[in-house]
Amino acid sequence: MSKLLKFQITLFRRYSQNSPEYTKKKFNVIRGNYNSIQKEDIQHFRKILDSKRVVTDSVDLEKYNTDWFFQVRGTSNILLKPKTTQEVSSILHYCNENKLAVCPQGGNTSALGGSVPVFDEVIVSTELMNKIISLDEDSGVVTCEAGCILENIDKYLEPKGFIVPLDIGAKGTCHIGGNVSTNAGGMRLIKFGNMHGNVLGIEAVTANGEILDCLSNLKKDNTGYHLKHLFIGSEGTLGFVTKVILQCPPRPKYRNAAFLGLQNFDKVLKTFKLLKGHLAEILSAVEVIDTPTMEFIRKENKQDSPIGDYPFYLMIETSGSNEQHDEEKLHLFLEEALKTGLILNGTVASEPAKIQAIWSIRENIANGFRAYGSRMLQYDTSLPFKDYYNILEPIKESTEGLSERVFGFGHLGDGNLHLQIILKNEATDELKSRVDAVVFEKVAAFNGSISAEHGIGFLKAKYMDKIKPKNTLNLMRNVKKLLDPNGILNPYKVIV
Amino acid sequence: MSKLLKFQITLFRRYSQNSPEYTKKKFNVIRGNYNSIQKEDIQHFRKILDSKRVVTDSVDLEKYNTDWFFQVRGTSNILLKPKTTQEVSSILHYCNENKLAVCPQGGNTSALGGSVPVFDEVIVSTELMNKIISLDEDSGVVTCEAGCILENIDKYLEPKGFIVPLDIGAKGTCHIGGNVSTNAGGMRLIKFGNMHGNVLGIEAVTANGEILDCLSNLKKDNTGYHLKHLFIGSEGTLGFVTKVILQCPPRPKYRNAAFLGLQNFDKVLKTFKLLKGHLAEILSAVEVIDTPTMEFIRKENKQDSPIGDYPFYLMIETSGSNEQHDEEKLHLFLEEALKTGLILNGTVASEPAKIQAIWSIRENIANGFRAYGSRMLQYDTSLPFKDYYNILEPIKESTEGLSERVFGFGHLGDGNLHLQIILKNEATDELKSRVDAVVFEKVAAFNGSISAEHGIGFLKAKYMDKIKPKNTLNLMRNVKKLLDPNGILNPYKVIV
Repeated sequence: MSKLLKFQITLFRRYSQNSPEYTKKKFNVIRGNYNSIQKEDIQHFRKILDSKRVVTDSVDLEKYNTDWFFQVRGTSNILLKPKTTQEVSSILHYCNENKLAVCPQGGNTSALGGSVPVFDEVIVSTELMNKIISLDEDSGVVTCEAGCILENIDKYLEPKGFIVPLDIGAKGTCHIGGNVSTNAGGMRLIKFGNMHGNVLGIEAVTANGEILDCLSNLKKDNTGYHLKHLFIGSEGTLGFVTKVILQCPPRPKYRNAAFLGLQNFDKVLKTFKLLKGHLAEILSAVEVIDTPTMEFIRKENKQDSPIGDYPFYLMIETSGSNEQHDEEKLHLFLEEALKTGLILNGTVASEPAKIQAIWSIRENIANGFRAYGSRMLQYDTSLPFKDYYNILEPIKESTEGLSERVFGFGHLGDGNLHLQIILKNEATDELKSRVDAVVFEKVAAFNGSISAEHGIGFLKAKYMDKIKPKNTLNLMRNVKKLLDPNGILNPYKVIV
Repeated sequence: MSKLLKFQITLFRRYSQNSPEYTKKKFNVIRGNYNSIQKEDIQHFRKILDSKRVVTDSVDLEKYNTDWFFQVRGTSNILLKPKTTQEVSSILHYCNENKLAVCPQGGNTSALGGSVPVFDEVIVSTELMNKIISLDEDSGVVTCEAGCILENIDKYLEPKGFIVPLDIGAKGTCHIGGNVSTNAGGMRLIKFGNMHGNVLGIEAVTANGEILDCLSNLKKDNTGYHLKHLFIGSEGTLGFVTKVILQCPPRPKYRNAAFLGLQNFDKVLKTFKLLKGHLAEILSAVEVIDTPTMEFIRKENKQDSPIGDYPFYLMIETSGSNEQHDEEKLHLFLEEALKTGLILNGTVASEPAKIQAIWSIRENIANGFRAYGSRMLQYDTSLPFKDYYNILEPIKESTEGLSERVFGFGHLGDGNLHLQIILKNEATDELKSRVDAVVFEKVAAFNGSISAEHGIGFLKAKYMDKIKPKNTLNLMRNVKKLLDPNGILNPYKVIV
């Protein structure tokens, strides 16, 4: 047996064991009025791409049909791997003419089933569109194809003295096209801002195969409607992003991390305010972890707090240009925070290995939770600072009997709380809906958002009419109709 | 004669003397198929607003019909001053039903005639919608009505420790609604980024009077299409912005400014690179001024270089949180720049009055040029850094005989060059078109943008089909049709 075949069987087994039920069945979805792939369609795709890039083998397809968190699973029987914008254009043009639904896919790390098919959509992957096209070393403007892995872009930029203004847990897998399409946020948004601010240009293919050139590489360019923003955060439902031009800032020369222990959430907020005053322009991340999450980290990830047990933990990072200044700022902050009793304990790291050791505690959380499969419910919320943690108690109370434990951690610096719930039992659809309803009701009561950075994808699409005013939703639907009249692009997602 | 009447007459005389020819005549514009204001329309508006806020007096109307640079002049005979979103909604609903064209107007500081009517559009001003509604002191999120003057918001934020992430020359006059609608840039974009990154939420009224609530005050909120971006930079042609929610960063505690003399543009670019390395996170502005501009400043504005004569000048600013660190960084930079011969001379200011003295040199330039009326042609371009100044020579050559002098200055840090030309004679339409054609051709040859931050307005609308691909323009037109099917909002602007 060839090595490749063995590997494929291993993969197949892994996916068969872990694979969730088919989405269409689990969520009782009604298939849209699209055609199904016929032999002649496959033949046509083999004319556009070479045969190797038209994948129809069910074993090979499994991982493209299943999402990163094993929550959803499509039944697509074809995967296309274009290498050029022209190929994407030809594919979409054909699919639009023949009413074949399409699921654009990047690194397939969506937390909400946004990147896998629901039925038999044609999966169009960006994985072979992975070239970094150019870098302007005067300005830090990088132009790349949509399938570039985020971390690869950053590694390419590092020796040139620039940094990608985005850092998320999935950076080793996710594609920049997906990051743009989902307006990915992550840990350093507090320093760099979001994709709407950092993307200078986009090339996208619309549903009918038209190539839309919004490839400005200028920081200021006010010439007409800023169409690129239509494709940022619309999760592949308005167009297929093929190229991205990013403004990358100078790479900070020095990093420091600190891990702090605090007594209660009120002190967490006060410490955050103090942090902003002292560290201001060098503050690049402010993450919070609560006690249940730290206990989970200890048990599941075999990692531990480096400073002993406290009710809350803050992980902060500075990124600056002058080692001595950065350290001085951090120490001035720590001194005051300790003196005023805002923090109870803290440790600081300046060496890369030690910084990474601190960060890995935070970065590994999501992987730990993945092991819980459907017993784990994850909520990616935004809340006004004052109520960031207040939301947990009412959720615990309202889910008593159903939940085993409720966890709160996340990007405090941006008001982004990752709220996770481990249920006592496997989540049935009915159970999940009940808990969802509780969480979303509380989020609404606190004027928060039910999706801070993960988007809507498939799993939250059904809630859109509850959280958006009717005329806002109507406009979204009309924008969708304008750009994709046959509704072939990523159906069942975002707007349904 | 009452004081008010005297004042009005003075105003009228001033405007009559300076007023440009009527736009419709000067540019030979064909009026759109809109209805004209009738008595019953005025009566209806008097029902929506009280009489005082329905202005029909031709003297009062003059300044609303004429632009800031005396380039264009409309013939509107009615100005409405709503105080609430509901009033804006009622006005637009009525205008849409009755096919009356509308010109939304903020502080009327558009450089391209974007904010005054071309014919008899109903002017709807935001000047009475000037309340700051709330500030979240934990996060720096400020919610305000569209008619707040930019500087007033900043003054309100100053004692609370925050800063508006936008600073433009017209700050004492321009309205935040206009800033958002034009995606205003300014001097500190290098530090704070543009409006797409800083606006968290928008309330806008669409052409049919529908109130669109995109008023998220959360930094991360990925729930469906990010519709607010449709209104950022579309210059009031897709909707009337009524409220804005801005993310405001902590106000830097310390500022420093430096004024440097340099030998040539190559050294300007090298100095900019050195600047980014040394000042990195505290660098908040990098402005360049060339010799002709400095001579102009000396002659017209009676200001002078504080360091004597050099071929080029850089004005830089730092904004940071630690006085000693900031000054040390600046001195380390200056030391190296002098030692390596990148700069020939320089002066540094740390006291507010001295900083302001340096800045006023730069800030007053636009006012000086205004005095030249139609002999002065202004171009707001973006260029890749390496060609930022290279563009001037070919423009001088190609306009020889027509131009008296060509000036280059601007926001180097963002690649934004303000290129001004003083003509030998008053600009006829034909002459202006010839010079425009030269400039735009050169900008295109250098892969630049013909509008970095000023937008398209009325004056550049005719060039849109030359600078945008056909399908991009089509999509813009379709978006316009979707949001404003009768084309009542700011007609003759941006997309024609």
